Amino acid sequence: MSDDTPAHDSGSVGLVTPTLYHFAEPLTLECNRTLPSFDLMVETYGTLNADKSNAILICHALSGSHHAAGYHSEDDKKLGWWDNMIGPNKAIDTNRFFVVCLNNIGSCFGSTGPTSINPDADSYVNDAGETVQPVYGPDFPLITIKDWVKTQAMLSDRLGIEVWHAVVGGSMGGMQAMQWSVDYPERLKRCVVIASTPKLSAQNIAFNEVARQSILSDPDFNDGRYLQAGTYPRRGLILARMVGHITYLTDEAMRAKFGRDLKLGKFMYGYDVEFQVESYLRYQGERFSKNFDANTYLLMTKALDYFDPTRGHSTALADDSLTEPSTAPEETGADSASEYNDLKATFAHTQCQYLVVSFTTDWRFAPERSQELVNALMATGKPVSYINVDAPHGHDSFLFDIPRYMGAVKGFLNAPFIHTPSSTHSAATAATPSTGAAL
Amino acid sequence: MSDDTPAHDSGSVGLVTPTLYHFAEPLTLECNRTLPSFDLMVETYGTLNADKSNAILICHALSGSHHAAGYHSEDDKKLGWWDNMIGPNKAIDTNRFFVVCLNNIGSCFGSTGPTSINPDADSYVNDAGETVQPVYGPDFPLITIKDWVKTQAMLSDRLGIEVWHAVVGGSMGGMQAMQWSVDYPERLKRCVVIASTPKLSAQNIAFNEVARQSILSDPDFNDGRYLQAGTYPRRGLILARMVGHITYLTDEAMRAKFGRDLKLGKFMYGYDVEFQVESYLRYQGERFSKNFDANTYLLMTKALDYFDPTRGHSTALADDSLTEPSTAPEETGADSASEYNDLKATFAHTQCQYLVVSFTTDWRFAPERSQELVNALMATGKPVSYINVDAPHGHDSFLFDIPRYMGAVKGFLNAPFIHTPSSTHSAATAATPSTGAAL
Repeated sequence: MSDDTPAHDSGSVGLVTPTLYHFAEPLTLECNRTLPSFDLMVETYGTLNADKSNAILICHALSGSHHAAGYHSEDDKKLGWWDNMIGPNKAIDTNRFFVVCLNNIGSCFGSTGPTSINPDADSYVNDAGETVQPVYGPDFPLITIKDWVKTQAMLSDRLGIEVWHAVVGGSMGGMQAMQWSVDYPERLKRCVVIASTPKLSAQNIAFNEVARQSILSDPDFNDGRYLQAGTYPRRGLILARMVGHITYLTDEAMRAKFGRDLKLGKFMYGYDVEFQVESYLRYQGERFSKNFDANTYLLMTKALDYFDPTRGHSTALADDSLTEPSTAPEETGADSASEYNDLKATFAHTQCQYLVVSFTTDWRFAPERSQELVNALMATGKPVSYINVDAPHGHDSFLFDIPRYMGAVKGFLNAPFIHTPSSTHSAATAATPSTGAAL
Repeated sequence: MSDDTPAHDSGSVGLVTPTLYHFAEPLTLECNRTLPSFDLMVETYGTLNADKSNAILICHALSGSHHAAGYHSEDDKKLGWWDNMIGPNKAIDTNRFFVVCLNNIGSCFGSTGPTSINPDADSYVNDAGETVQPVYGPDFPLITIKDWVKTQAMLSDRLGIEVWHAVVGGSMGGMQAMQWSVDYPERLKRCVVIASTPKLSAQNIAFNEVARQSILSDPDFNDGRYLQAGTYPRRGLILARMVGHITYLTDEAMRAKFGRDLKLGKFMYGYDVEFQVESYLRYQGERFSKNFDANTYLLMTKALDYFDPTRGHSTALADDSLTEPSTAPEETGADSASEYNDLKATFAHTQCQYLVVSFTTDWRFAPERSQELVNALMATGKPVSYINVDAPHGHDSFLFDIPRYMGAVKGFLNAPFIHTPSSTHSAATAATPSTGAAL
């Protein structure tokens, strides 16, 4: 990491304590099933100002949690997953903003999910003769990005935050930010979409399907009731994470990091670890399998696959100027003109300013995917700044402390809101984020 | 497929019958283990001429076999895997050439491999009271590309072919062609390397490792003794093939073929097949798992990982002009200058003409990987033609009937051999393969 990043002049939010919020009301989900109640595990950093206008919501990605910044205790100094982004004087400046991050429902870090007790299930008597109320396990409903945004809006109400200064997310978090701007256009002023996509490609879905089949076909999965069965689909989770991990990195980054280096310096002619990259992948898979719930992994990949903010916003709803096929960007598939028009129709009624960030080497959600969103936003006259950041880390770049990226986020968040929703930010302004950062 | 391809004016080699060749002599392998004897299953098409100068060797890829062209019986009309390439008047013209394709040892289509009887193992009595001589299974030694080339040279001797008109292969087959030119420089006049690479990248190895772990961690794998145990690691093989299959296609090709189409037209909120791409991948995995041996899959991926023709050809052997680091191509990693010099040293003593073909959308073995070989060949003054063919099918392109590709292969094989090993074919000639094809 470079010495001239804003973050290096900055500190940490320090010791933080998560808070559990209970929502006693039933929650009806997109799948038409209802949770009788649910909990959200939440962390906040900084101070909410008197008019509650300085709140920023952080949305996490597949394996993320509410723990975005700081550390939990003197014995557990593990920093939050976006500690280089969030803190005093950092890109998301906790001296200035009240930052909220929650664990999404369906996840496994404290909010209601597959590992939570299912109040509707019948209790059973275990081998020790104890009456046990089972966890949801595979009976937990499938959750969509739209569902998460709905629960996040309920949390906003609870916190008394009517309008977010910004909603910010990377990867799947960026999808939540997009969905916010579509579902609650009047409740956020800024939307930051990083290393994300308005929909998964067939290849993205294919990789997710391999991950799911790895888990589903593991005999220890036991149809998702592994906790009751006293088993755990460790092998399936390891495989799922290994294949996922490859898509987060790049061929070049792996080449630079591992090359074809051999762990023992020579060929062993067997199936134990030989190349360094094998060792790394197995380690990542093993570590992940110890900290993540298999049903949650399945659910998260499905939420990704299902994401499509254009659902319910067909071009039939748009005016003529929005459905002009001749204005379609470079066609990348048979449906691209209609997909483009659907995106325009979907985002036509948003009211926030957008910052969209992609990374040159990201092949999971490539820059072209971000540009689909940018093209639709610009064509509908929305204020959008876009930067494609040169970074070698692939999809993982959004977690790295890259000066241009951090500077753009900081500048965008600190700049005054422009009260002309129909005006369009010049894309050129995005090329000089330091100007914004100086505001 | 286009109507103007050469193959469309052409017929099939028709009914073919494989021949099993037994080699009674012990074969010592790179891993220092020895097979007491071995068999090779072979098909030939066309007629060997009197001076045995018209023979072309075809090398197969990971899941390939000896059955490259024609069909086996009126009841089994399944065409060989390269039937669009090999036949009367086709790119590899059986009216002109005697074409040989064999199943490599370690594979599972008739040549000696993990499913063959292991003569050195102790027999055992099975559940039915019968004395059984076990198959090799996991005791079959790991095989390298160099080992395959060695067995292919032994087959050449048996067939009385001193010098091949050409050795041709795609993907892993291209690696065998490369190794031929290094190990037996005087025994081939032309070397055709298609959609291949002089070495796997860390990402390539990573994907192979996921495939291997899928099989190795399947409880039905039984340490590789699944045939004795009466089990079969079907789930592992399905996963391995699914992840492999994704790398053979491209994001764009999958988008064009499947998009985000739903099998049932709506979200089902469960883990059964929903998207068409999931259905396709599962089908491909299922089909593959019924026809392929798991130990063979493991062995094949290891042969890929191990491939490195520069082993034993360090730059210390090369003259000064070959070790000049300033002539290195664009650096792609810390070791690229030394890798380049090693490649130059390795190919410095080859005597054949090369045709190297890559495909623009191949991200498994990207054009840059082919160009590493081309750069080294050109820098050492070897005659090499190179084309990077615009094709949408990704790595699988080498199996498609693409006019420019087929024309280049045909032109290269039909052109007279230039008896000036130090002269260099202009890369520009490769841009007009139709000229060559007309020869």
